[in-house]
Amino acid sequence: MSCLNSSTGYRAVLSALNAEKGVSLSKQKIIVVAVGGNALYPPNSPSFEIQKDLIAKTCKKLADIIEEGHRLIITHGNGPQVGNLLIQNEKARRLVPSMPLDVLVAETQAQIGYLMQQSLQNAFNRRGMHRRVTPVVTQVVVDQRDKAFKDPTKPVGPYYSKTRATRLKSKYKWEMKLDRRGGYRRLVPSPKPIRIVEMASIRKLVSQRGSVVIAAGGGGVPVIERRGKLVGIEAVIDKDLASSLLANELDARTLLLVTDVRYVSLNFGKKNQADLTEMTVDEAEGYMKEGHFPEGSMGPKMQAAIDFIRKEKREAIITSIGHLKKALDRKDGTRVTLD
Amino acid sequence: MSCLNSSTGYRAVLSALNAEKGVSLSKQKIIVVAVGGNALYPPNSPSFEIQKDLIAKTCKKLADIIEEGHRLIITHGNGPQVGNLLIQNEKARRLVPSMPLDVLVAETQAQIGYLMQQSLQNAFNRRGMHRRVTPVVTQVVVDQRDKAFKDPTKPVGPYYSKTRATRLKSKYKWEMKLDRRGGYRRLVPSPKPIRIVEMASIRKLVSQRGSVVIAAGGGGVPVIERRGKLVGIEAVIDKDLASSLLANELDARTLLLVTDVRYVSLNFGKKNQADLTEMTVDEAEGYMKEGHFPEGSMGPKMQAAIDFIRKEKREAIITSIGHLKKALDRKDGTRVTLD
Repeated sequence: MSCLNSSTGYRAVLSALNAEKGVSLSKQKIIVVAVGGNALYPPNSPSFEIQKDLIAKTCKKLADIIEEGHRLIITHGNGPQVGNLLIQNEKARRLVPSMPLDVLVAETQAQIGYLMQQSLQNAFNRRGMHRRVTPVVTQVVVDQRDKAFKDPTKPVGPYYSKTRATRLKSKYKWEMKLDRRGGYRRLVPSPKPIRIVEMASIRKLVSQRGSVVIAAGGGGVPVIERRGKLVGIEAVIDKDLASSLLANELDARTLLLVTDVRYVSLNFGKKNQADLTEMTVDEAEGYMKEGHFPEGSMGPKMQAAIDFIRKEKREAIITSIGHLKKALDRKDGTRVTLD
Repeated sequence: MSCLNSSTGYRAVLSALNAEKGVSLSKQKIIVVAVGGNALYPPNSPSFEIQKDLIAKTCKKLADIIEEGHRLIITHGNGPQVGNLLIQNEKARRLVPSMPLDVLVAETQAQIGYLMQQSLQNAFNRRGMHRRVTPVVTQVVVDQRDKAFKDPTKPVGPYYSKTRATRLKSKYKWEMKLDRRGGYRRLVPSPKPIRIVEMASIRKLVSQRGSVVIAAGGGGVPVIERRGKLVGIEAVIDKDLASSLLANELDARTLLLVTDVRYVSLNFGKKNQADLTEMTVDEAEGYMKEGHFPEGSMGPKMQAAIDFIRKEKREAIITSIGHLKKALDRKDGTRVTLD
C-alpha cells in the first residue's frame, strides 16, 4: 500500500468513525423534549381511540421539528396513565397480584412509548423520512436519603373509602390524605433524579444517524442503590427534572419543556398576568422566589430549566405543543437563557 | 504528519472503528435466548415478591452464561402477565378506559423487561462484571393475510360468564370459546412474525461491547402494515418464533430455547418416553410430522429451531433454566443441528 493511499484511507476511516459516533456536527443540535401529560392524555377518562388520536397529533408536531433537522430525544409524562394502572391493580387485587409503583411506572413507559413510537414512525414514513424510533425502559436512581422520603407529597391512583384507606395505611405503611375531591388518596415521595442507569445505551442510540430515542418516560423507573444493588422503590420522579438530567448527560443544545400554556407568565391567571418571551436564569430564580411558579405545575419546569442552564450554559424553552416549531426559531414561547 | 504516523494512525482508527462496530470476533458468539414463562412466573397467582424472586433466580443463571463469555440477547414469554393485565382492564373497565391487546403486550415488555434488567444488572455488579442491560420496546410485523386471522386459536385473559361473553362477542366481534376449566375465554390469532421493526436499534445496541439487550418480549407487539402505516392489532405472537426471527436477523451462533423440561422427548409423558440429546433438523421435522411435539408447547419451539437452522445453518438448543450452562458446552439439554 502506498503512503498516499494509506493517508486517504486514514481520512476515510476517520470520517466513517465520526459518522458512526455521530459526534461533532450533530452534537450541537440535540434537543431533549419533555412532553407533558396534556399533549398525551385528554381530560375526562378518554377512550383508547381518543388517547391514541391525541398522541398521533402530538407526534406529528414532533415530526415537524425533526423534519427541520433537529435531533430529538423524547421524555414524557405519565400521571394519568400510572393513576389508571393503580386503579386497575386495586380493582382486580383479589384476582391478580398487585404490582408496586416502580413496576407500574415501567409499564407506562412501554404503554406511552409504544404509541408514540408507532405514531412517529408513521409520520416519518408518510413524509419519506428515514428515522428509527426506539423506546428504552429507563431506571433513574434517586438518593434514599432524599428528604422527599420523609414527606411524601405526590397524590397518585384511586380515591379510597375511609375504611380501605385506613387498612392500606396500616398494611403497607402508605401515607394517605383526604382529597378535596372526596375520598382518600395515597401520597408518594417525589425524590430528585440523580443518575440515569441506561445512559450508555441511550447515548449509543442517540449517536446513530436518524435515531429518535424515547427515554426516562414518566421521569424514569425510581430505584435506589443499596449496597451496590439497584432496588425499585415506591415513588415517582418529576419528568421535567429527569429530562433536565438527561439533557445534561447528552450535552443537549436545548431543553424543550412542552406544557399546556404558550408562555410562562408572571401573576398567572390574575388580572395583571404578564406573559414572558425571554428571561435570564437569574430572573427565573428571582421569580421562583417570589412564588410565581406553583409546585406541581410551572415550578418543576422552571427548576428543570434552571438546573440545565446553570450546568450546561445553554437554553431552555417552555411552550405548548402548537408553538414548538416557532419557539425553536425564537419566535414563540418562553426562552430561558444564561444571560 | 509523517508517513509512518499516518499509517499507525490508520490502523489505530480502523481498530477503534471495528471495536465500535463490535463486529468480527464477537459475531460468532451471539446467542439469542428465549426465556419461557415458567422461568419468570411461578404457578398459582404468585405475589409480586415471589415473581421477583423467580426472575432474580433466572437472571443469575443467565448471568452465569454471560460470565462464560457469551453475548446474550434475551427474549421472554408473557402469557400469564398479559392475562393478568387483561383481567385488570376488565375489572376496572367502568373506571378506566381499557387498552387493546397490542398495548398490553407492550406493557408486559416493560413490566418483565424492567425486572429482568434490574436483576441482571445486580447480578453483574455483584460479580464485578461491566455489562449494560437495555430493554427495547419492540414491534413485530405480521401479515394481515396470515391464515391465523381467520382462525383465532390462542386463549387469553379472564374467564367470562356466558352473558358477558355474548356481549363482548357482539360488541367487539371477539371470538369466544367455552373453556374446559369453566367460563368463556377470548381466542386471539397467533400470526407468524415477519419483521422486527426496531431491528436497526437492536443491532446497534448488540454491537456495543458489554451490552445485553432484551427485545421482542412476549413475541413482540403485534402490528400490521397497512398502506405504509404500522397499525397495532389484537393478536399475540409466539415468542419462540419471534426469537428465531431475531436470531436470524442477528446472525446468531445459537438459538437457545429455555423451557420447563431438560430434554426434548419422544412419546413425552408415556411409558416409552425417550429423551433426546441430539437430533438433526431432518429428524426434528420427521418427529414433528409424527406428532411428538404438541401445539402450544414443544411444537412452536421445534418449529422455531427448524426455521433458524434451515436459514442460518447453525444450532438450536432446548433445555431448562438449570441446565443452560452445561447445554452450551454440549453436555446437557437437546441440541438440534443441520446434520
